[in-house]
Amino acid sequence: MHDTRKIDVMENIHDENDRIAAHVNEGLTARGVFAINLMGAPGAGKTTVIRRLIESLRDLAPCVIEGDIEGDIDARELRALGVDAFQINTFGACHLDAPLVHNAVGNMTLGDSRLLFIENVGNLVCPAEFSIGEHARLLVSSVTEGSDKPYKYPLAFERTDLVLLNKTDLLPHLDFDEDFFMKGLRALNREAPVIRVSGKSGEGFAEAAAWIRASLSPLNPRP
Amino acid sequence: MHDTRKIDVMENIHDENDRIAAHVNEGLTARGVFAINLMGAPGAGKTTVIRRLIESLRDLAPCVIEGDIEGDIDARELRALGVDAFQINTFGACHLDAPLVHNAVGNMTLGDSRLLFIENVGNLVCPAEFSIGEHARLLVSSVTEGSDKPYKYPLAFERTDLVLLNKTDLLPHLDFDEDFFMKGLRALNREAPVIRVSGKSGEGFAEAAAWIRASLSPLNPRP
Repeated sequence: MHDTRKIDVMENIHDENDRIAAHVNEGLTARGVFAINLMGAPGAGKTTVIRRLIESLRDLAPCVIEGDIEGDIDARELRALGVDAFQINTFGACHLDAPLVHNAVGNMTLGDSRLLFIENVGNLVCPAEFSIGEHARLLVSSVTEGSDKPYKYPLAFERTDLVLLNKTDLLPHLDFDEDFFMKGLRALNREAPVIRVSGKSGEGFAEAAAWIRASLSPLNPRP
Repeated sequence: MHDTRKIDVMENIHDENDRIAAHVNEGLTARGVFAINLMGAPGAGKTTVIRRLIESLRDLAPCVIEGDIEGDIDARELRALGVDAFQINTFGACHLDAPLVHNAVGNMTLGDSRLLFIENVGNLVCPAEFSIGEHARLLVSSVTEGSDKPYKYPLAFERTDLVLLNKTDLLPHLDFDEDFFMKGLRALNREAPVIRVSGKSGEGFAEAAAWIRASLSPLNPRP
């Protein structure tokens, strides 16, 4: 299974992906658009997080790329709220890659947008391996998934710039060990802030939105 | 990204995988061991499901293969309960494959065991594509993940023989739409029973254990 041919092809794919990711990033930067690669397990609450963040960031005219194996449930939900949402279907592939995002960005208006959320396929493994042109990575980890996730899916936690610990409204009903979670996270990633949020109550999203505002300030504001 | 070389290599990998999976399946069948490929998203409760099922199936001397990117948290938990648990680390790969399981089975004692749980990597995408020699597939879908999962991860739901709808103890605190879930599931899979379970309370596991007993009866019981 792990023969040399496969490894060669995979290395070529990663090099090609990174080249296109850099190109996507340059194009977005030149337009003053800050792109966030939003990752998390299936059902972690990624779309709800985007919805909540948009409520606090309307002045940045946020738009969204939705990555899903099939279907457009989340894109339709966002469009119903007046958000410009572009749907990518991967038809089996377990992550977004830079060419898919390149094609999406090329087909979006963007207009006055200064913020682009790219919701990756729900998966804690493969998305973390691929740059897609983002300026920052945001990982949504739900407390209902348990406190051992950093130990089991290290790359996703190692490579994120921000962790949103979601569904905190359910903590009274769970045996979530936050110390164990933080110990696992900090062994991999000493920098990324962890913000406790609840998609249901809205708790924590003002702080998360403030983190995004502070992060995009290095991009030159447009005149 | 989707060049011909890659597709050729991937087809070769799938053919080779299926050949080895058939070999693993024959070997286990000859020994009277029924193997369950247990899949689900990160944090769906797969290990807890195995622990609960083992409580009701002790007479079958169940043993376990644990598939994880890294670490052996779940294998250690099961060994502490006296269960023979073999750990496979995939070191980045997002699913188990037949060669990995072949090597694991070859290194396990099995002894009087008539039941083997193979816990796949937490992932609703890639594991569904690969046979690993199993006799049945069991999908753990937690109500905390939301009711739209069959629509977003169709292959996992299409190819399962049994769905355990887990964490039902949390239903009073969630907006889970069971009709929508079932509609999505039944569009893909008309056969698989859905059993509501709670790893926390133990609800539903007697029924799930009975399903397993009924399923393994076609394997010749050993004298």
